[in-house]
Amino acid sequence: MHGHTIRSAVFIASVAGLYIAVAMLAPAALDYYYGNPDWQVFAVSSFVVGTVCLAAAAANRGINAPFSRRLGFLVVNLLWITLSVTGAIPFYLASLGLDMADALFESVSAVTTTGATVIAGLDSAPPGLLLWRSLLQWIGGIGIVALGLLVLPYLKVGGFTVFKMESSDTSEKPFERFAVFVRAFFAIYIGLTIICAIFYRVFGMTDFDALNHAMTTMATGGFSTHDASFGAFQSPALIWTATIFMSIAGLPFSVLILFVVRGRWDALRDPQIYAYGSILLVLSVLIALSLRLTQGEVFGVALTHATFNVVSVVTTTGYASTDYTLWGPLAVAVLFMATFLGGCSGSTSGGIKTYRLVIIASSVRTGLMRLIYPNSVRPVRYGSIAVEPDMQRTVFLFVCAYVGIWVLGTVALAATGLDIETAISGSITALANVGPGIGPIIGPAGNFSSLGDPAKIILVSLMLLGRLEILAVLVLLLPAFWRD
Amino acid sequence: MHGHTIRSAVFIASVAGLYIAVAMLAPAALDYYYGNPDWQVFAVSSFVVGTVCLAAAAANRGINAPFSRRLGFLVVNLLWITLSVTGAIPFYLASLGLDMADALFESVSAVTTTGATVIAGLDSAPPGLLLWRSLLQWIGGIGIVALGLLVLPYLKVGGFTVFKMESSDTSEKPFERFAVFVRAFFAIYIGLTIICAIFYRVFGMTDFDALNHAMTTMATGGFSTHDASFGAFQSPALIWTATIFMSIAGLPFSVLILFVVRGRWDALRDPQIYAYGSILLVLSVLIALSLRLTQGEVFGVALTHATFNVVSVVTTTGYASTDYTLWGPLAVAVLFMATFLGGCSGSTSGGIKTYRLVIIASSVRTGLMRLIYPNSVRPVRYGSIAVEPDMQRTVFLFVCAYVGIWVLGTVALAATGLDIETAISGSITALANVGPGIGPIIGPAGNFSSLGDPAKIILVSLMLLGRLEILAVLVLLLPAFWRD
Repeated sequence: MHGHTIRSAVFIASVAGLYIAVAMLAPAALDYYYGNPDWQVFAVSSFVVGTVCLAAAAANRGINAPFSRRLGFLVVNLLWITLSVTGAIPFYLASLGLDMADALFESVSAVTTTGATVIAGLDSAPPGLLLWRSLLQWIGGIGIVALGLLVLPYLKVGGFTVFKMESSDTSEKPFERFAVFVRAFFAIYIGLTIICAIFYRVFGMTDFDALNHAMTTMATGGFSTHDASFGAFQSPALIWTATIFMSIAGLPFSVLILFVVRGRWDALRDPQIYAYGSILLVLSVLIALSLRLTQGEVFGVALTHATFNVVSVVTTTGYASTDYTLWGPLAVAVLFMATFLGGCSGSTSGGIKTYRLVIIASSVRTGLMRLIYPNSVRPVRYGSIAVEPDMQRTVFLFVCAYVGIWVLGTVALAATGLDIETAISGSITALANVGPGIGPIIGPAGNFSSLGDPAKIILVSLMLLGRLEILAVLVLLLPAFWRD
Repeated sequence: MHGHTIRSAVFIASVAGLYIAVAMLAPAALDYYYGNPDWQVFAVSSFVVGTVCLAAAAANRGINAPFSRRLGFLVVNLLWITLSVTGAIPFYLASLGLDMADALFESVSAVTTTGATVIAGLDSAPPGLLLWRSLLQWIGGIGIVALGLLVLPYLKVGGFTVFKMESSDTSEKPFERFAVFVRAFFAIYIGLTIICAIFYRVFGMTDFDALNHAMTTMATGGFSTHDASFGAFQSPALIWTATIFMSIAGLPFSVLILFVVRGRWDALRDPQIYAYGSILLVLSVLIALSLRLTQGEVFGVALTHATFNVVSVVTTTGYASTDYTLWGPLAVAVLFMATFLGGCSGSTSGGIKTYRLVIIASSVRTGLMRLIYPNSVRPVRYGSIAVEPDMQRTVFLFVCAYVGIWVLGTVALAATGLDIETAISGSITALANVGPGIGPIIGPAGNFSSLGDPAKIILVSLMLLGRLEILAVLVLLLPAFWRD
């Protein structure tokens, strides 16, 4: 690892920090407008973060290390650490009295778009702080889509490059169409957020609630301005609006861009979208039927809540419209298992993601066929495309690392004294960036504030690992990564 | 699928059924000796099974279909169905009053060497019935070692062939050294069972208990003659004896054969044995330390019980020396996760097995290295041997199928109304052929008798799937398997 590679990475992370400093002015203005003294917290944070990042950027500018995989991995990790640490400063300084572990937890939960919270009493929290949580999550959403579409596929960690899918051009120049792409992406992300906010407003939310929830919906983050999460809004119109926009946010942005910007309907014909749609449909109907049969719920009502919560978990948003852990064992088991899944590649959602599930399903079929016909050369397919062995290997690598980290996380959380249900579900809900777990402590009706600091630090690590698709973090643990 | 392939498979399964008919004479004689009327049950069962199997064997003999993969898969499945169904007959007819689901559950739990039981009141159960449970498990152990060493590797489902490991001869003639191999295997399996029984007897068990527990120890089955399982024997000498013999039973029999018969010490230098030993050591010490620190237990006592229960779970035996679910969250989490692991390939244990874990660990390392050096050609290694891509694929195929079946099993069990803890742990404890789960119902202090029939049928399916390494069952679901 050459010094100028590290300095280039620090430069890029510092620039990102500057954006965070600017973003802090929004909650500062809001709190100032409402006469809340916390405006000073945001102003001071903005000044400090801005100064430090400006200094770091200035000290490291003009280095321009040649783009390499190591630089890529380093940037990705440094970016999320920068977002996490700078984002935590206002939480720590604000009047809510969070300690350092709590502030870091809330910030990491935001920038990884997880949505687990340690703050109880959201309904009476100052507006600037609430806006900061939502904004940080929304920015995290931008970051992860950019990462998932532009950087990670190039690093071979996950996803397809939008370029490769669109043309047969395989030259490795990921930043070539950068400008066009970034404009289209911002237009769609911002556009969808505004449309979502308008619908929320029309169907009865206040301006402030509509804005905050639109941001955390599109980020599939799941922070709410109410302790009851989406349970504070019992209007079916609002619940379905959220369901639809969460579903859209779980789609691949590369496909959305092709669809919206170029009117390419055929872009929607992506196997991961079929799989994603099928999973949402089957699980929602299954749980709705179980609610109808075991709890005697009216089917329409059952379907509304079942679909909302299934979509919320599968897209890794983590809103809850009600405490679904009271829906009986089948619903709990399905929603627990759904925590592992995730939405499409190149979306704001986390988890294993459906394109990997499609490749695994095809691999299993091909593998079984090979047991009968050992000489058959039936390829593993993703739709009509044959999946290269390299891609298959990375998918399996990811799944093994994912399960392994989940196991280690569970054991580590149990070692801090948490009960087995909280440890098992807490580990996966953090790793998949979903938000709520199961059980009375961290379930949809619970809150992470009562956990001890060691548990919070473990969960913070799991959220970051999951958000960076695990492998992008694990490579940093190889001694070879740091050698010249 | 040609008719004569099916008829050949039926012939082989019928011959196995004849052995079961003969084996039934042992409990018949025992009950007759003790004046228990159940001797008639075993005599009648033996006569019926013997007659039917003799007829089936006679009707299908002389077919001699050429050996093919499909015949192999068919034989493997038919064998375990035959063992399960014939083994269940005495349970159904005996004076204990088990219904059909219970009788099948107990029989499948025996022949798959799982060791989950639906019988409460073992301490006062008739001796013939107790012997039948142990004997069936011991026979299941023979079957699975033969399967794992001779058949499954040839079908490319799991494990290494003992032949390939021993020489570079790769000609596909798996039955060539059959006779030598089978003699050595029987000598070791029977020899170890006798030695184990002698130790149990010397350290204080009755003759009957010593025999039964020796059989279920070597089969890593875990059936006991007491409701309290090994908790009925609080002597450290007995607990350590069981620990040692369970550990031996989790070793690869191919290696034991080379070691015992040919005095090849170097055979023990197998990466899966290192991994297996390390797992047992680390988990035992971890749990013992946790018991020392959180429960204030004397370290020696803590280590005795921790090691016994870790070895019991990892070898998939399933004895319990005490209710370890009261040992605190860390121990519960570790023992739950250990349920997935399993012992070595070609042993009587189930689970993922350590040779797969070794290959996965090497794959993850190689995969991460490839992320930094995309053109590196570092192979995946098993010790000093490079693992062929075909083998890697099968390992990943197995792990994906294993996790997938566990998830489906959990959801299915929850759908029958079981709580999430029982569903999650019940699914894996059956699939890995361990025995006890966690929670008050099926935990080490519990019993499977209170479950409903649908749950029992699901668990029976999971036990059989796990025992046949999943893939050997799944191929039968492919339409291509049945086509000519």
